[in-house]
Amino acid sequence: MMKVFIAGVDGYLGWSLARHLAARGDEVSGADACLRRSWVQEMGSDTVVPIASMADRRAAFEERFGRPLRFFEGDLRDFSFVRNALAEAQPDAVVHLGEMPSAPYSMIDVDHCVFTHANNVIGTLNVLYAMRETCPDSHLVKLGTMGEYGTPNLDIPEGFFTVDYRGRTETLPFPKQAGSWYHWTKVHDSNNVMFACRLWGLRSTDIMQGVVFGLGADEKGDDRLNTRYDIDQSFGTTINRYCAQAVIGHPLTPYGTGQQRRSFLPLVDSMQCLTLAIDHPAAAGEYRVFNQFQEVHSIMALAEKVRQAGREVGLEVTIQPLENPRLEPESHYYNPDHQHLADLGYQPSLDLDTALRGMLTDLVPHRARIESLQSVFVPDIRWNQARRKVDVRTEP
Amino acid sequence: MMKVFIAGVDGYLGWSLARHLAARGDEVSGADACLRRSWVQEMGSDTVVPIASMADRRAAFEERFGRPLRFFEGDLRDFSFVRNALAEAQPDAVVHLGEMPSAPYSMIDVDHCVFTHANNVIGTLNVLYAMRETCPDSHLVKLGTMGEYGTPNLDIPEGFFTVDYRGRTETLPFPKQAGSWYHWTKVHDSNNVMFACRLWGLRSTDIMQGVVFGLGADEKGDDRLNTRYDIDQSFGTTINRYCAQAVIGHPLTPYGTGQQRRSFLPLVDSMQCLTLAIDHPAAAGEYRVFNQFQEVHSIMALAEKVRQAGREVGLEVTIQPLENPRLEPESHYYNPDHQHLADLGYQPSLDLDTALRGMLTDLVPHRARIESLQSVFVPDIRWNQARRKVDVRTEP
Repeated sequence: MMKVFIAGVDGYLGWSLARHLAARGDEVSGADACLRRSWVQEMGSDTVVPIASMADRRAAFEERFGRPLRFFEGDLRDFSFVRNALAEAQPDAVVHLGEMPSAPYSMIDVDHCVFTHANNVIGTLNVLYAMRETCPDSHLVKLGTMGEYGTPNLDIPEGFFTVDYRGRTETLPFPKQAGSWYHWTKVHDSNNVMFACRLWGLRSTDIMQGVVFGLGADEKGDDRLNTRYDIDQSFGTTINRYCAQAVIGHPLTPYGTGQQRRSFLPLVDSMQCLTLAIDHPAAAGEYRVFNQFQEVHSIMALAEKVRQAGREVGLEVTIQPLENPRLEPESHYYNPDHQHLADLGYQPSLDLDTALRGMLTDLVPHRARIESLQSVFVPDIRWNQARRKVDVRTEP
Repeated sequence: MMKVFIAGVDGYLGWSLARHLAARGDEVSGADACLRRSWVQEMGSDTVVPIASMADRRAAFEERFGRPLRFFEGDLRDFSFVRNALAEAQPDAVVHLGEMPSAPYSMIDVDHCVFTHANNVIGTLNVLYAMRETCPDSHLVKLGTMGEYGTPNLDIPEGFFTVDYRGRTETLPFPKQAGSWYHWTKVHDSNNVMFACRLWGLRSTDIMQGVVFGLGADEKGDDRLNTRYDIDQSFGTTINRYCAQAVIGHPLTPYGTGQQRRSFLPLVDSMQCLTLAIDHPAAAGEYRVFNQFQEVHSIMALAEKVRQAGREVGLEVTIQPLENPRLEPESHYYNPDHQHLADLGYQPSLDLDTALRGMLTDLVPHRARIESLQSVFVPDIRWNQARRKVDVRTEP
């Protein structure tokens, strides 16, 4: 039995992880300011799978698992709050999911860029200092993103690489080349976490996670235990958005040529991998990096896969590429390692095609809600221009 | 004639640069919240060379140069302030010296760590967005530090290096491995500036500057035009502190074995180099890095040089190493490039021994003030322990 503290326990991954860990008998506590709910509202959207209030979530949690979720409501930017929560929880592991997780949201304007930096970077510094003060032997499992690496014309190792340069050899942090302010805040965090491990002997696993997809519905059908599912331009990720589009007959909308390649993993495997990291803590003073994903695909190939899965469950699916609102290479080399989690025993739990068919089926009951939200599918946040809805892509 | 805006115009480098540029006919404006004055007070110290109020500085500036220094009093963390100042100034170049520049200050506790991040990272983001909005063709000369690189077991290039890795070749940002929260904020800034250049086509020169030393006294003896000179553990840098110690017969106090090697340049050459960068702007969209220093020495070798210079001007100087309050390798490879500024015409203006003799002579009139402040020589800010004055070093 582990004592696990989840920063960001009200979020897509945080709530799923709380259930996953409680189901196997862990003692779960967590903190959240529940900001994700308002960010999605600010995008004019809402979770497609309805979620309960935190009070109702906790009631259902205790009914299901027979022990309470110890919850601390507050903001990670407030150091006293973080210190007091960790002092009370005394966790074996701190899983830090409490960040603003959207690239487009961070790109809206200076206020959103600055907010993202303050929220993510200062929140993480407070977690580090609070761990040092209250639970220095606890293991920090910090969520980063594969997007920290960007798309260099090299294989991407797990955090570090050994190079020869002018006749000398050295192992160095692999240089990061992020593509949004959000992704850069994650790079800043990674650097700060690495430094804290060296400075104070903290132990940390920094998870470079691919794009997560899937519904986190409660296995036993208690709707109060469902996790959120977003489809807007900022908080909905590629596959989740595609699947929502497919079930209402809206064209799938890859950006640009769709040849951008990214790494992906299902929500259930994200839980599996985080649990492996929790169960195999880093050593004191160790800062280690896990690249956490299952497969690499271009976003156009994924659209094709969703179309095919739709056909198999009786949905007619079309694809309509949009102008790319982002500034990113659409054709590039991409070959990241992901050996560390495999070495700990990670086994993909389902193939992508099966997963997609399941998602489409599970989303059908939410059709009306998706239809009411469908205006959020077309993005208007542009990387280097003023906000304006993108057009359909007209180039060949 | 250039129009130059100096963020941090009240500081050690900022005030020196304002005078240097005005003396050659440039139109200088600047912003400051004058926080440096209170940070040094917080350290229980004061500038050894008395400095005038900003009002008196500006009056003397206008008398001397025949035109006003346009001054904006405010904080870079306030975006509206930065935008309005740059909109009014319409500079050809923005020299960004407006950061909290001390490693020990950033290491005091969580509050100082978080403040340093907010001040430096958010201030820089506001400068970037304000430039984009009000003067997108202006050239950002951003002060970084050689400390961003740390001390890798490789030659240190200027910002970027080309490596082979698993059969592919790529030019990448050189990985940074900073040694304090302050230095990490500079790394975060460098990453953010690099991204803004790619995103919006801004032009920027990121200056990785060595440790600057020297008095910035007015050439014509108007004390109101002097720049500050700090000697405390946080804002006094190695050579400046050594020279102040030497003139009052206090032992020089290198930390640890003193074999740590660092890069240095005199204040007058920092001005020369910044002016070269201003006069040769980066191209639109270009992010370039200059390593800015004259010589590399161990801090013990510098103590020996100060002792020798003292002997030559009639001062008896001793050396008493202290326990090292920092966490840093004391024995390491260090071989940074510094070709870019040489290519633009940088010529060291004086040799180190001559510079040291001049500093010792110029500090003699300030002897009484140094004596009154000498308790600040022994550091108490420790990298990974609670604050407590260090002992003299007892190991062999």
